[in-house]
Amino acid sequence: MHKLREMMSAHPKTVASRNSDLDSAVEAIASCAQVCTSCADACLAEPMIADLVRCIRLNLDCADVCLATSQVLTRQTAIESALWRDLVNACRTACRVCAEECERHADMHEHCRICAEHCRECVQVCDGLLQTVSA
Amino acid sequence: MHKLREMMSAHPKTVASRNSDLDSAVEAIASCAQVCTSCADACLAEPMIADLVRCIRLNLDCADVCLATSQVLTRQTAIESALWRDLVNACRTACRVCAEECERHADMHEHCRICAEHCRECVQVCDGLLQTVSA
Amino acid sequence: MHKLREMMSAHPKTVASRNSDLDSAVEAIASCAQVCTSCADACLAEPMIADLVRCIRLNLDCADVCLATSQVLTRQTAIESALWRDLVNACRTACRVCAEECERHADMHEHCRICAEHCRECVQVCDGLLQTVSA
Amino acid sequence: MHKLREMMSAHPKTVASRNSDLDSAVEAIASCAQVCTSCADACLAEPMIADLVRCIRLNLDCADVCLATSQVLTRQTAIESALWRDLVNACRTACRVCAEECERHADMHEHCRICAEHCRECVQVCDGLLQTVSA
Repeated sequence: MHKLREMMSAHPKTVASRNSDLDSAVEAIASCAQVCTSCADACLAEPMIADLVRCIRLNLDCADVCLATSQVLTRQTAIESALWRDLVNACRTACRVCAEECERHADMHEHCRICAEHCRECVQVCDGLLQTVSA
Repeated sequence: MHKLREMMSAHPKTVASRNSDLDSAVEAIASCAQVCTSCADACLAEPMIADLVRCIRLNLDCADVCLATSQVLTRQTAIESALWRDLVNACRTACRVCAEECERHADMHEHCRICAEHCRECVQVCDGLLQTVSA
Repeated sequence: MHKLREMMSAHPKTVASRNSDLDSAVEAIASCAQVCTSCADACLAEPMIADLVRCIRLNLDCADVCLATSQVLTRQTAIESALWRDLVNACRTACRVCAEECERHADMHEHCRICAEHCRECVQVCDGLLQTVSA
Repeated sequence: MHKLREMMSAHPKTVASRNSDLDSAVEAIASCAQVCTSCADACLAEPMIADLVRCIRLNLDCADVCLATSQVLTRQTAIESALWRDLVNACRTACRVCAEECERHADMHEHCRICAEHCRECVQVCDGLLQTVSA
């Protein structure tokens, strides 16, 4: 994922001072999408799948929202702050509700424990981004 | 797209009274994603592409956000209203800023005119959904 | 979805004679993505979910592949026939394996019956597209 | 991205011996999607954008196909080898044609140089995966 860092600083309109935070934020959000896709799939293979229905659904939602958010945040040309803020806010909510659900299964399932941990980190990443925009 | 309607009413936990509005909303949002993908591509083929850079960027963003939103809204199992609301809000913003930009090129480019029109409809669809949730 | 048709014919480099088939193909593939997303979600809400694990997984795969395919096929600028062919081929396979699995549950679950039907149609759509490319 | 590795080995049906290669392959493909999204956006901000139209288009395609491929390969439940193979094949083609185009601009644009390099790596990753399946 170092490539993304290189890419974002090779952008003709990059804002260097801002980038180092932004690119690690984008990496965290894109990584969260993958972790959630993986958790949904691991839940699907559990014998006690019936207890994990809400977890799978929120994993899928969180993956979709994190993916879209990471795509939008990757773009540095003609940034639109209103969309940026509202999308990061939705991403924060997706990660929060997914974390809360995964935490309920963290003792039983290692994949839910890891996923919850990563979603919590992503909530903080989104908080950091939201402070940048409102500042 | 009638298939989606059939699908959503074949869902074991469907709420019939609510569905007819919801499925046409999901169709409108998914269709907006396609229209925006198509507008970005049409802009890319215009000789005056330099004037359309911001338009392409917002088209791509709007497509990403509408796609994620249509996926999340399609799911009827274990609906999470906080995510629902924040995501529809972000979708509304994506459609609004894209519509505003496309409107600036509507006289020159038929694809921008159609895209602006569809994004405006999608803003109204999102408004309708947001009223349902807050009611 | 008529908007997509309008959009694709408003493209500066559109090939009119080819378009009417192409846009309905894109619509069918994009619609299949939504139907599969919806079937995965409906399966998730079934009491007999344990019997539907493979179905959910293939629904999710088929949705991902159909979405990517519909995006790539929507673009008319600088078409690359090798990618076009290999991607439609992968889409055809995704729809075929998903149809085969859904058919096994079609008697029990109306959503699987509809989804299988739509995936089968999409296999034919892909066959039609592949004949165009190789011709 | 180490989280994905942890996740894939926490999967109830993980095949440990196979995983270490698979998870780095998935990471490379997902990372390629982000690099291509970033290259499309950097091209969009270049003054000589008219020369980069084909590059942007193939970047967008490659991002879409790599994303879908990384999602499907992340899933370890009920793997379907025919889809796996055809999708990796399409991903390989997307990366190859994108690399070829980016290489034409590598002297002028650092982002194209990095993107070409990463797409080439991804072609090799796909070759490795295809050998695993056919073996």
